[in-house]
Amino acid sequence: MAIELKRYEHNPIVTPADVPPSSPDLEVIGAFNAGAALVGDEIVLLLRVAERPISADSRRVGIPRVDLSETGGHIEVEWVDRDVPELDLSDPRGILYKGRQYLSSVSHLRVARSRDGFHFAIDPKPTVVPSTPYEVYGVEDPRITPIDGAYYVSYTAVSPMGVCVPLLRTTDFVHFERLGVIFPPENKNVVLFPDRSSGRYAAFHRPAGSAFGSTPDIWLAYSPDLLHWGDHRRLMGTRAGMWDAGRIGGGAVPIETPKGWLAIYHAAVGSRYCLGTVLLDREAPHRVLGRSVDPIMTPIEPYERAGFFGSVVFTCGAVRRSDDEVLVYYGAGDSTLGVAMTSVSELLETVEPVSALTAA
Amino acid sequence: MAIELKRYEHNPIVTPADVPPSSPDLEVIGAFNAGAALVGDEIVLLLRVAERPISADSRRVGIPRVDLSETGGHIEVEWVDRDVPELDLSDPRGILYKGRQYLSSVSHLRVARSRDGFHFAIDPKPTVVPSTPYEVYGVEDPRITPIDGAYYVSYTAVSPMGVCVPLLRTTDFVHFERLGVIFPPENKNVVLFPDRSSGRYAAFHRPAGSAFGSTPDIWLAYSPDLLHWGDHRRLMGTRAGMWDAGRIGGGAVPIETPKGWLAIYHAAVGSRYCLGTVLLDREAPHRVLGRSVDPIMTPIEPYERAGFFGSVVFTCGAVRRSDDEVLVYYGAGDSTLGVAMTSVSELLETVEPVSALTAA
Repeated sequence: MAIELKRYEHNPIVTPADVPPSSPDLEVIGAFNAGAALVGDEIVLLLRVAERPISADSRRVGIPRVDLSETGGHIEVEWVDRDVPELDLSDPRGILYKGRQYLSSVSHLRVARSRDGFHFAIDPKPTVVPSTPYEVYGVEDPRITPIDGAYYVSYTAVSPMGVCVPLLRTTDFVHFERLGVIFPPENKNVVLFPDRSSGRYAAFHRPAGSAFGSTPDIWLAYSPDLLHWGDHRRLMGTRAGMWDAGRIGGGAVPIETPKGWLAIYHAAVGSRYCLGTVLLDREAPHRVLGRSVDPIMTPIEPYERAGFFGSVVFTCGAVRRSDDEVLVYYGAGDSTLGVAMTSVSELLETVEPVSALTAA
Repeated sequence: MAIELKRYEHNPIVTPADVPPSSPDLEVIGAFNAGAALVGDEIVLLLRVAERPISADSRRVGIPRVDLSETGGHIEVEWVDRDVPELDLSDPRGILYKGRQYLSSVSHLRVARSRDGFHFAIDPKPTVVPSTPYEVYGVEDPRITPIDGAYYVSYTAVSPMGVCVPLLRTTDFVHFERLGVIFPPENKNVVLFPDRSSGRYAAFHRPAGSAFGSTPDIWLAYSPDLLHWGDHRRLMGTRAGMWDAGRIGGGAVPIETPKGWLAIYHAAVGSRYCLGTVLLDREAPHRVLGRSVDPIMTPIEPYERAGFFGSVVFTCGAVRRSDDEVLVYYGAGDSTLGVAMTSVSELLETVEPVSALTAA
């Protein structure tokens, strides 16, 4: 069944203007792609907050640099005269200076809390900042998975070494234990399942496309302990001619249903990102039982189509608030955060049975 | 100390002519990059054997295809008229036919056995053939690590999904248990250490270079069980202006010495591959203690410089035959197998202490 998820009428619920920058030299240009979890009677978000140097002086360019010298690291700005010959600004996403590459913006993670799921109190300071050599270009796109009373945060770490995925553990969203890099480069969109399947934990991951020109696919891996991953299997690929023809990746943490694991994934053709659903076997989640033929969410609202690089709806977290009710938090236009309201039963109706061949 | 490893005077010890092809339609074009292990009083090799269709008829082109329909899989040849418009032969490494990509050759693994380490009896039939969807372009470059009375074989699996690394377990080199993909794409040069460090197994791996233009580096991962890997750390990178400036990867299985883990790695500048040494902390092998400044082996012999793509010495296995004596088996010119004779003490002398900065 084709649907379009119902948006909250006052979307976006978080915009860059709502988020205090981490330093006076920086301005927030994105507050989006948030992980989400139900913590007691609150919904806690980990927002991806993208910042860039304020361009107050047109003769100078600010280069955001992560300083790892202090505990926890922080983002500082180096100001460079715009006319120095070692400066190359031809790519809007990056800055080339003295032969080294910098991103024009750097992301950190920021906690926001809400009782109703729509109105969030955003922490005034960064929660998770780049703190290791794997993170000097920023930390992005967190997923929060509740397991055995703790919350595990898998996120994308970006550095000159590539894009890889570390893991954090927290019980209070104040103190975070760093558990190391669980997926080496090039990988992103790692989403841990909230419970074991046949005794093992599972996770989506998304290696980069191959040297043979294949599109980036979603893989599934298993783990005995959440820290070490193996038994990697390609789970599902793009579908030629469809809305998910270009590249796909895991989105929100899967929801356990009587029919199996229900997950929302993202896919793009060019720079247009949509969301769809997939249903996986409860005890062997590398088996795809069904998949939505049409997207469940497409970028149609003005704030979803305002992205610098394209029209985007992109989820890192959906919260099951009651037995059936689901709130889907999603990045809109790579800039703001929206929420859509749906239910387990509605999402399950979007799943069409697929043969193993079609799903591949 | 700069050295050049002493070659066996009758190198190469294995050539393509020594290896019976796996079918009458195929010819062996490479017998190289062999894993090696001491098994009882024998040295056992797993040769990488590359085959391509025999070009008996100049009007037709053979496309090597792996058929997975039977248990264990096998390589078959599809013959196509050279003048069909859907055929593109412009890249010598690959064939484009009806919009699908094929490699011009496919590799399998073949056992060879020797008592003296120099004269090998090569099995008449393939030992490990491509058998899963991850292997349809071939299985390559095995490393054999003896652990607790068994032998673990990590090797490169090539398919349209990319280049990834499965693991096999054997006790007799006749029956092999498949343990799944332990490193997802794009990754290769996975080398398992033969013993635990601080209670965990370790492995070299070599993810592809990053989107930010970094060179491919060697990473180290840890595992509780050899099947699941985590705590990934970038171990060592290329060194600008040196013989290992272009890209590097793990080579032979590390040797335990009183000074730490001693390993031989490979590196290339352009298409010229050399070998060097690195010394790692015994209980924390993500710490580099030393590294050779100069290569220990460079492609100087005619059979090492005869490669189609470049001059190559490349090792997948070195055997410590007595307390000090080491035989280094190495692929020469991407075509034949040679052996070089050295010792633990000689290799240790090549290692120069490096600061953490230089090693990175």
